[in-house]
Amino acid sequence: MTSQAVKIGICGLGTVGSGTFNVLSRNAEAISARAQANVEIALVGARRDNPACDLGDTPVSRDIFEVARDPQVQVLVELIGGTGVARELVEEALANGKHVVTANKALIAEFGNELFALAQQNNVVIRYEAAVAGGIPIIKALREGLAGNRIEWLAGIINGTGNFILSEMRDKGRDFADVLAEAQALGYAEADPTFDVEGVDAAHKLVILASLAFGMPLQFSSVYTEGITRLTPDDVEYAEELGYRIKHLGVAKQSDRGVELRVHPTLIPEARLLANVNGVKNAVLVEGDAVGPTLYYGAGAGAEPTASAVVADIVDLAREISVGQNCRVPALGFAADKLRDLPILPMQEVVTPWYLRMEAEDRPGVLSSITAIFSEHGISIEALIQKAPAAGETRVPLIMLTNAAAQGNMDEAVATIEALDSVSGEVARIRVEALDG
Amino acid sequence: MTSQAVKIGICGLGTVGSGTFNVLSRNAEAISARAQANVEIALVGARRDNPACDLGDTPVSRDIFEVARDPQVQVLVELIGGTGVARELVEEALANGKHVVTANKALIAEFGNELFALAQQNNVVIRYEAAVAGGIPIIKALREGLAGNRIEWLAGIINGTGNFILSEMRDKGRDFADVLAEAQALGYAEADPTFDVEGVDAAHKLVILASLAFGMPLQFSSVYTEGITRLTPDDVEYAEELGYRIKHLGVAKQSDRGVELRVHPTLIPEARLLANVNGVKNAVLVEGDAVGPTLYYGAGAGAEPTASAVVADIVDLAREISVGQNCRVPALGFAADKLRDLPILPMQEVVTPWYLRMEAEDRPGVLSSITAIFSEHGISIEALIQKAPAAGETRVPLIMLTNAAAQGNMDEAVATIEALDSVSGEVARIRVEALDG
Repeated sequence: MTSQAVKIGICGLGTVGSGTFNVLSRNAEAISARAQANVEIALVGARRDNPACDLGDTPVSRDIFEVARDPQVQVLVELIGGTGVARELVEEALANGKHVVTANKALIAEFGNELFALAQQNNVVIRYEAAVAGGIPIIKALREGLAGNRIEWLAGIINGTGNFILSEMRDKGRDFADVLAEAQALGYAEADPTFDVEGVDAAHKLVILASLAFGMPLQFSSVYTEGITRLTPDDVEYAEELGYRIKHLGVAKQSDRGVELRVHPTLIPEARLLANVNGVKNAVLVEGDAVGPTLYYGAGAGAEPTASAVVADIVDLAREISVGQNCRVPALGFAADKLRDLPILPMQEVVTPWYLRMEAEDRPGVLSSITAIFSEHGISIEALIQKAPAAGETRVPLIMLTNAAAQGNMDEAVATIEALDSVSGEVARIRVEALDG
Repeated sequence: MTSQAVKIGICGLGTVGSGTFNVLSRNAEAISARAQANVEIALVGARRDNPACDLGDTPVSRDIFEVARDPQVQVLVELIGGTGVARELVEEALANGKHVVTANKALIAEFGNELFALAQQNNVVIRYEAAVAGGIPIIKALREGLAGNRIEWLAGIINGTGNFILSEMRDKGRDFADVLAEAQALGYAEADPTFDVEGVDAAHKLVILASLAFGMPLQFSSVYTEGITRLTPDDVEYAEELGYRIKHLGVAKQSDRGVELRVHPTLIPEARLLANVNGVKNAVLVEGDAVGPTLYYGAGAGAEPTASAVVADIVDLAREISVGQNCRVPALGFAADKLRDLPILPMQEVVTPWYLRMEAEDRPGVLSSITAIFSEHGISIEALIQKAPAAGETRVPLIMLTNAAAQGNMDEAVATIEALDSVSGEVARIRVEALDG
């Protein structure tokens, strides 16, 4: 299989541009094994360098339009944002027969219909996974993964700034203006936060999701947009009393009466997964007629989460461009000759915290003899519950949570404990996973 | 743009086969607009018909191998299950130059390496989205949507039977054997439930996810598998006391010590979204080095959820097969000339329940005058909170939840209420969404 190069040009070295450069560099080997082609950054167009990424020998131009004109560049990656220069840049790239990858929600929401037509005329493709919900591959899910469904509705937390503010209002009873100031200080909100807190950013993203879901041209001006600026701590508290959380939702529904497109504060039942999406995370709930409800959750913004989506589109295009491949997308996602025979870790060496349950005599010294055995094995007890004995019983259940310990080590400690006269039967064991990275 | 036909053959008319037939029929128009090709079921191979689907004029053969031999058929959809006949059928289809779509986790987990090689030799493709987590497009997420990441680990609830049992044990304090019997009666568990409750089914699915994530050949026999049969109601209760839920997780992690592949009961902190995935639903949490944690949730089994995944693969292949298209995947997911100008519902006609907050005089008759106005507008109050007046105040906050009402109707009711002498200022309003279908 010939390994060819696919040459891309990156325009913009801001947060997402530098993140994209870094991810492409760091994961170059895996990306080329997945794409079955080497992705080369032929040119970067940026008004200034960004200390967050080391360009090395990569050619840089201070004129981003050079990227759109460079005949080597097959895919132009537009990461400058806005609907002014970015629009001209993308139009020129498409007219020059280049594919485009963008993260620009405003550009797609407001000018997508024209840009898609221009791409089609020029027999090239625009991809925009990074425009909505950061690194969560929701565009791909709607466009491909759920392609067998009639999408009935979708609802999403698609602006991390607003969700961070609402989470803080709820967790700490603070008021809107106070949390907004903190969000700006933390870089979660812009100096002009209007687009976030008034719902304009969410509206850009919603119209993109709705068009993909329902098969209609983009119509950004039809989205009803209401921000979160008038919510009070009382509302947040009363909603909670009633069994709800307040989220800034984008909602799109289709019915025989028409399509609803709306962004506004919304009470949702606290039992819903969506109600428990906090901080700067995003999540989109989609109801399809065949699959039912599906939910997609993850980081909605940030350098590398957004870069993850940009690179996914680049890999898709690299797979499209590679000629001589009938099988553009390899069966296991990596070129067959690049699969690695990774060693499997034996279970004895797997390290996890543990839940333990045992029965022990309820008398002095028993607990300390048990904990001494753990201590000898370097295992600490993080939590302990001792239950009252049943009537007429001298033994009690002891329940423990330990810190992380290798299974082999735990096997030995447990064997020693089971051999104690004061402990009857086997020690029940269940592994614990924190699931936090 | 020529609209060509892509001819498929469906083998098996069981739960998933009939579901697939029904989804392809019901959503034929949208599917062909998305695929930019007409998907035609050229032949069905099934030992018997299924009353759940009306085959109409579709040709049927009682010899499923006829589907693998029929030169018209471009894509064979294997929905018979198992690793005996299904394996021979798939091998014959691939050898005959047909693409294959399957839902067969055991087949892929145990024979995938050989089948992928056979597919590659014959320049065709096998797709298997439906083999893991039903309709949730997790295979596509790992293979494409997260292609920019080094996947560090993933953890999933990927067997609905086991999750249903554990949810019932926790919600109702019942024991394992008792809930298993009910699961069997409800059709959530097989007569021989071993594959589900001992974790074998989850292990099949885990090894597929891990290979896609880490870029390694499938190695089913390396998965450590421990079932849920020894969990007691006490364990479920004690875990809860400690702040955890017990789930039957499949976990795959990569580190420089090796790859962990394991299925076993696991305590997870109750705050995690995964801890709140209940009943027969599935969810997979994936940690990528660029994107961070992402979660995918939905129906892991069932006729139409699984069919949703089968059809997504069929659409992918139809897009691959369609010649003369440079742009195989249309920008908005539907062929440009098939986008529909759907009417947007004016906000006045949007119907939702409402949260309302107002200030009213705290004296007899005020509440009834307010509720009478709602009653005149056909709006009912589903919940009401009246707060105590602040010191020296004669007015109190009144908080209400209404049933579903059109915005225009609510506008009128609220205007009338705001005009009452007993009500001061504006009525604050927030829409409510149940998000349950």
